[in-house]
Amino acid sequence: MSADDEFDIIERYFTRLMDDPDVLVGPGDDAAVVRARGDFAIAVDTLVSGVHFPREMKAESIGYRSLAVNLSDMAAMGAMPRWMTLALTVDDPGAAWLQAFSTGLFELAERYDVSVIGGDLTRGPLAVSVQIIGQVDGQALTRSGATSGDDVYITGGVGLAAAGLSTFGRSSVDSASALLRRSFERPEPRVDAGIALRGLASAAIDVSDGLCADLGHICERSGCGAVIDVDSLPLDPIVDAGFDHDTALAFALGGGDDYELCFPAPSDRRESVASALRSVGAAARRIGEIKAETGIVCRSATGVIEPPAAGFKHF
Amino acid sequence: MSADDEFDIIERYFTRLMDDPDVLVGPGDDAAVVRARGDFAIAVDTLVSGVHFPREMKAESIGYRSLAVNLSDMAAMGAMPRWMTLALTVDDPGAAWLQAFSTGLFELAERYDVSVIGGDLTRGPLAVSVQIIGQVDGQALTRSGATSGDDVYITGGVGLAAAGLSTFGRSSVDSASALLRRSFERPEPRVDAGIALRGLASAAIDVSDGLCADLGHICERSGCGAVIDVDSLPLDPIVDAGFDHDTALAFALGGGDDYELCFPAPSDRRESVASALRSVGAAARRIGEIKAETGIVCRSATGVIEPPAAGFKHF
Repeated sequence: MSADDEFDIIERYFTRLMDDPDVLVGPGDDAAVVRARGDFAIAVDTLVSGVHFPREMKAESIGYRSLAVNLSDMAAMGAMPRWMTLALTVDDPGAAWLQAFSTGLFELAERYDVSVIGGDLTRGPLAVSVQIIGQVDGQALTRSGATSGDDVYITGGVGLAAAGLSTFGRSSVDSASALLRRSFERPEPRVDAGIALRGLASAAIDVSDGLCADLGHICERSGCGAVIDVDSLPLDPIVDAGFDHDTALAFALGGGDDYELCFPAPSDRRESVASALRSVGAAARRIGEIKAETGIVCRSATGVIEPPAAGFKHF
Repeated sequence: MSADDEFDIIERYFTRLMDDPDVLVGPGDDAAVVRARGDFAIAVDTLVSGVHFPREMKAESIGYRSLAVNLSDMAAMGAMPRWMTLALTVDDPGAAWLQAFSTGLFELAERYDVSVIGGDLTRGPLAVSVQIIGQVDGQALTRSGATSGDDVYITGGVGLAAAGLSTFGRSSVDSASALLRRSFERPEPRVDAGIALRGLASAAIDVSDGLCADLGHICERSGCGAVIDVDSLPLDPIVDAGFDHDTALAFALGGGDDYELCFPAPSDRRESVASALRSVGAAARRIGEIKAETGIVCRSATGVIEPPAAGFKHF
């Protein structure tokens, strides 16, 4: 495979342009050209092997996850993903690796109708940087609109990915662990939910650093705080069965990588929120409330729980 | 410095938003949001330490060059650069490194009025991935419009960067070598020239892989070939003085990294091309002609010169 040069590899594995009349120039020139009319959300996320995912993770999962975490940023803005570029740095991958990576990536790209309009393939320690551009019709969801009294929601389970990540390195993996690991490897970006929440949620973020940390980001930007009702957290039965309760709680409050949407919304919009989510086959659970006092408090029937240490340290 | 987390570092070194009313949401949210009306060129380029630049290269030059090579892609499309995202992977850089990198990057960003709208900072082996978005008013320059009979131009000297790159690793560097090395470290993207050439050049590319290789890319896309008149090449006197003539020619024809624009244009537009470039303080030299027969032929008064081996192997 190393005989292939960049151009052949891009042509063979990464050129699968969607049917998009707004892509005027696709891959293979100095830049792509798109026709854009409106407001666009733009994000970039890099996954480095051994830092953001275990070195043993399969190529297909790396491809899938690289796009998933970026789609999740679009979801958190309420944006409809449109175009992506891929900067892939990899050392002597071989045809099977490239094919598997491409399969994982395009599984999601095709599901969300995202065109890969360009990229850069370089040799070096494995890292994947995806840039994504999505269209925002109306007002984007940001982190800064939360107000005291808002409900706080989460779209799905929390802590599954962290539990899954903890199973890497084990020599044997039972079916429960395999399921959890899948949550880490193949998070489901909540794109449709994000779009449905535009105009309803007062802010939004995707849970990548951990629930407390990410809700904290919203609160910092919004100048407020929040209480999390720990008893209402959607703890997964598999996590609860496979780990002691404190560990399961730590995964839920402090573990990242779930890529669920956490969002506040005014309490008089409960029905609208539920019905908007239902219309796209999604759901969310109320897990707390925005408060005027800054800081994140985790409360259960038995008292206040010390929030876990800071979220994922990026750096 | 390692106590700083991603958010502090981005805030301190990379948040210098230009005054752009089309940036609706800047750095610090899940994504930036821009208002876009028209056609936009989008490119991404990754520079990996030890692959695309010597490990000993200074942080300021790394910052400068990371943006320069992307601005050069905008130049080659005739696009006006607008916004960029930065994905920086670096291991324990320290404040001085970050400050120097940022200084080099923003020197160019400010000169071209490019807003850094977002990014991602990750820990790992040094690599910089810049994604750039530029506005195209009118028809973008692509690689595919060359026609037999077109003149072939280059905007500046060729081979300087390759000569400069060859001086890395030397224990002592004289002033001539320092000047050449600067050509490698701080290429001047021909943004104004690219914009001026819209509607005049029939195609364009920036010389990153080497003159023959890059002109070859235009010819492949356009279904034609070209003759390069080697005697007309703008060889630099410093290169000619510091290296034997064959090496100097190999740098000029095969060395990459000059980031000059190579472009064909119809021969009846010679005056328009010259005057359009003059109006932005640029110039270009005619160095050959597009031919119907495919392939790149390098010809001098003494006969045909074997073109150098393939351009920069990306992979």
